[in-house]
Amino acid sequence: MAETQAPPPSDRVRLRRYRNRGSYEREQIDAILDEALVAHLGIVDADGQPFVLPTMHARLGDIVYCHGSAAGRTLKVLGSGAGVCLTVTLLDGIVFARAVANHGGNYRSVVILGEGRLVTDRDEKLRALEAVVEHITPGRWLEARRPTENELRETSVVALGLEEASAKIRSGPPGDDDADYALDVWAGVVPVHEAFGAPQGCPRLASGIAVPPGVADYSRPPRPRT
Amino acid sequence: MAETQAPPPSDRVRLRRYRNRGSYEREQIDAILDEALVAHLGIVDADGQPFVLPTMHARLGDIVYCHGSAAGRTLKVLGSGAGVCLTVTLLDGIVFARAVANHGGNYRSVVILGEGRLVTDRDEKLRALEAVVEHITPGRWLEARRPTENELRETSVVALGLEEASAKIRSGPPGDDDADYALDVWAGVVPVHEAFGAPQGCPRLASGIAVPPGVADYSRPPRPRT
Repeated sequence: MAETQAPPPSDRVRLRRYRNRGSYEREQIDAILDEALVAHLGIVDADGQPFVLPTMHARLGDIVYCHGSAAGRTLKVLGSGAGVCLTVTLLDGIVFARAVANHGGNYRSVVILGEGRLVTDRDEKLRALEAVVEHITPGRWLEARRPTENELRETSVVALGLEEASAKIRSGPPGDDDADYALDVWAGVVPVHEAFGAPQGCPRLASGIAVPPGVADYSRPPRPRT
Repeated sequence: MAETQAPPPSDRVRLRRYRNRGSYEREQIDAILDEALVAHLGIVDADGQPFVLPTMHARLGDIVYCHGSAAGRTLKVLGSGAGVCLTVTLLDGIVFARAVANHGGNYRSVVILGEGRLVTDRDEKLRALEAVVEHITPGRWLEARRPTENELRETSVVALGLEEASAKIRSGPPGDDDADYALDVWAGVVPVHEAFGAPQGCPRLASGIAVPPGVADYSRPPRPRT
């Protein structure tokens, strides 16, 4: 993989190691963020202890939004302007090398550093929640019941800009030491992907309600609904 | 899901919200750690900025091991005794509720808090690296070329105890507000799982080397090799 650098990244997100895996291109960053269903959010508490919590996110232009309960501690730390890190990882393969030391994964990951901004504007909050649901499957925002004012109040939304973001990608066959290629050891890659099963209707689903398009044939990234 | 509590967790890992989703049973924690291929490791730099980095891990009894380049910054922070957080998340389903606000995921996650301990004992380091490779697929440690002394020196291994670990599990159909069950909106779950493709041999693979058992029919958690 060639290293691409435009625009120049900040020193904090510049990769120190495996620099050939680094890519700072927004196209790649956006594609990884848009495909992933789960992000891991890193925050630091008052004692300096890091917490890493899984969350569902959405990108809207240059901003990634996360949401959570307004009563929870996570969103409080997030919205306080403290430094946060949001990381998304898509595992694409398991790399079996000839040497134990060269085993690993093929993956695409994005790391975003920044300061969380608590979204207080009602319109932005609604757009963010819409983005999070549309990130799961396009069209769902208009299909499902949209938030009441109470639900809006009980939900906190935090915005994180993409100014300090970097992508890291590893793909292709294992890399072994020259002398090891002669070894009698199988080497290669087992491809990995997220698979989606047939939708399981809620036991309390009223009769006659069809599975919506985009849910019946779920995929990542989601197909635009026609 | 019933909440189970044995032993009593520390205050830091006790779930503040959705407490019915919390489980402190080691069996569940171990099963989630053992199934997951990727963990997300949270560390804090000298400026208080959190970093969340994907890594491959392995559990050996009451310890989770991570490894990385001895020259990298991550393992240096990790081994310094600073507070770290290791989180593992298995996404089991996408939950489509009648209300936008009740959408989310079915998942099993583990959060471990602690202080990283740099493994300096040669035997423990070897056992840890063996565990990481055996975590990917059992039997691989004896099959592939084991580390040289140089490779051992260039690799740092960090141990994290399971004393402060908690699991969080969400499963089952969507939960909607009573009034919403009458809505004409499809609700249910799209199951999600990690799928593994047919092994792709390295282009430089010598002829006549067969795909090992456990790789040809890869699964998580891995089947014990017979």
